[in-house]
Amino acid sequence: MLVHTIEEVREQIKKWKKEGLTVGLVPTMGALHAGHKSLIVKSVEKCDRTVVSVFVNPIQFCPGEDLDKYPRTLEEDYKLCEAAGVDVVFAPSPKEMYGEGHILSNDFLTYVIPPYFYVNKLCGKSRVGHFDGVCTVVNKLFNIVQPDYAFFGQKDAQQLVIIRKMVKDLNIPVEVVPCPIVREESGLALSSRNKYLSGEEKEYALALSKILFNIKSCYSRGIVDTGALAETAYAYLNEHHSLEYLEFLDADTLEEKQTADDNTRVFIAVKIGTVRLIDNILLSDK
Amino acid sequence: MLVHTIEEVREQIKKWKKEGLTVGLVPTMGALHAGHKSLIVKSVEKCDRTVVSVFVNPIQFCPGEDLDKYPRTLEEDYKLCEAAGVDVVFAPSPKEMYGEGHILSNDFLTYVIPPYFYVNKLCGKSRVGHFDGVCTVVNKLFNIVQPDYAFFGQKDAQQLVIIRKMVKDLNIPVEVVPCPIVREESGLALSSRNKYLSGEEKEYALALSKILFNIKSCYSRGIVDTGALAETAYAYLNEHHSLEYLEFLDADTLEEKQTADDNTRVFIAVKIGTVRLIDNILLSDK
Repeated sequence: MLVHTIEEVREQIKKWKKEGLTVGLVPTMGALHAGHKSLIVKSVEKCDRTVVSVFVNPIQFCPGEDLDKYPRTLEEDYKLCEAAGVDVVFAPSPKEMYGEGHILSNDFLTYVIPPYFYVNKLCGKSRVGHFDGVCTVVNKLFNIVQPDYAFFGQKDAQQLVIIRKMVKDLNIPVEVVPCPIVREESGLALSSRNKYLSGEEKEYALALSKILFNIKSCYSRGIVDTGALAETAYAYLNEHHSLEYLEFLDADTLEEKQTADDNTRVFIAVKIGTVRLIDNILLSDK
Repeated sequence: MLVHTIEEVREQIKKWKKEGLTVGLVPTMGALHAGHKSLIVKSVEKCDRTVVSVFVNPIQFCPGEDLDKYPRTLEEDYKLCEAAGVDVVFAPSPKEMYGEGHILSNDFLTYVIPPYFYVNKLCGKSRVGHFDGVCTVVNKLFNIVQPDYAFFGQKDAQQLVIIRKMVKDLNIPVEVVPCPIVREESGLALSSRNKYLSGEEKEYALALSKILFNIKSCYSRGIVDTGALAETAYAYLNEHHSLEYLEFLDADTLEEKQTADDNTRVFIAVKIGTVRLIDNILLSDK
């Protein structure tokens, strides 16, 4: 079922709750790919009912980012969801989510603001305000759908840590279920933004996963100095890559690591042409 | 029943929800007086079950405010609640609400931040960060108790507007029920901070309600220029009063009014000795 209003979702949820059914939520911005599908499959398996939200959230885009040209493919998204056994696809308009009249700013809108320590690094450093927008919309979706479980991809690892922190800090009654990164056979992590890549750029994009896999392999052979591990990246980078960050942080607290351990996550962001790609790996991942 | 942990409250709430019972929440900082009691009575009347939270929330006190000396009277509070038919009194420790280890700052804690337009006036102007702390703790309490109704006093009128705005902006599934100000026969609005007043100061404190009642009476006789209405206040003020603000704002949007109307609320804050008192009135109040 495809619904566009908060009221319709709430009515449906209310019925399910009355029947004692568990509800899973998969929040997305649409342009669904196999990465999203893996979250959806997990929710359909784990929960009695599954809601997929499809909403390109304006307040998580920074000035100059790709809000207008972000891919919108609701028809295909809906088909994918239906085939996967999703019960409700919730695709609200910006007006339905934020009302109209006022500019979407912290002058006139209540925001959920994640802690500075978690935000002031990795993607948060260049995408100022991005995670404020993410937390605010996810908080809204949690309140609208009141899911028992919510599914997030490990691909957006900083986002996942920040959402879990929000859930803990605000005592939100939901269990966050992290789902592993889905990769092409080449190693490239799936992303809606891969659509922007030319054939050549897609080749260059393989550097991200190659760098991460190589670092993991070095770690497993006993190299724990994160400076030394970082150095190994340069062999994979050329003039087509603009490295934004390569960082070694604790997977839960996002504290910087000088010495890598099993709970260290390596985060990378690289710009290729105009496309900004991210990837990450946990050093103890199988 | 008196409970101190989030887990105990949740267990109780879960049972009630399963039975299809409605839940009312009255969030307080304790030191309960007849004003709080009126909220409690309303909740007990309206809802199948009532939870009163008693928590002196550290993050809504500003530096130099009265966090340490704020009255704490849990035993009496509990008796009042029990007599009024409250089902659960939830009195958590700061550690239970915020964990321990880190300083309570936006470096390490997710905050719910109300819009600047609503905050940058009245009490928010002098109490920087106060409403961030209020929204954050109320959001947490809403997530812990998941009430159908939540009861707030009109005494803290700016707080009430801000909470309603938060509920709307974040789609929180709760109905906020505003409750009228309770006054002593003298007109003095009840407040936990009245305990700080000496006998003499209590006399001076009557100025607040006298000013408001007089303004309302002037308005009902046709004076609508808010400048002229404000002028009438000075007849009631002397060297014992330090007027912090006297403002005429739209009761819902907190927009400033040059010309008073039925939806204009008059807000006043006065410091008497070291005690800061607030009061307000809607010009169309009966």
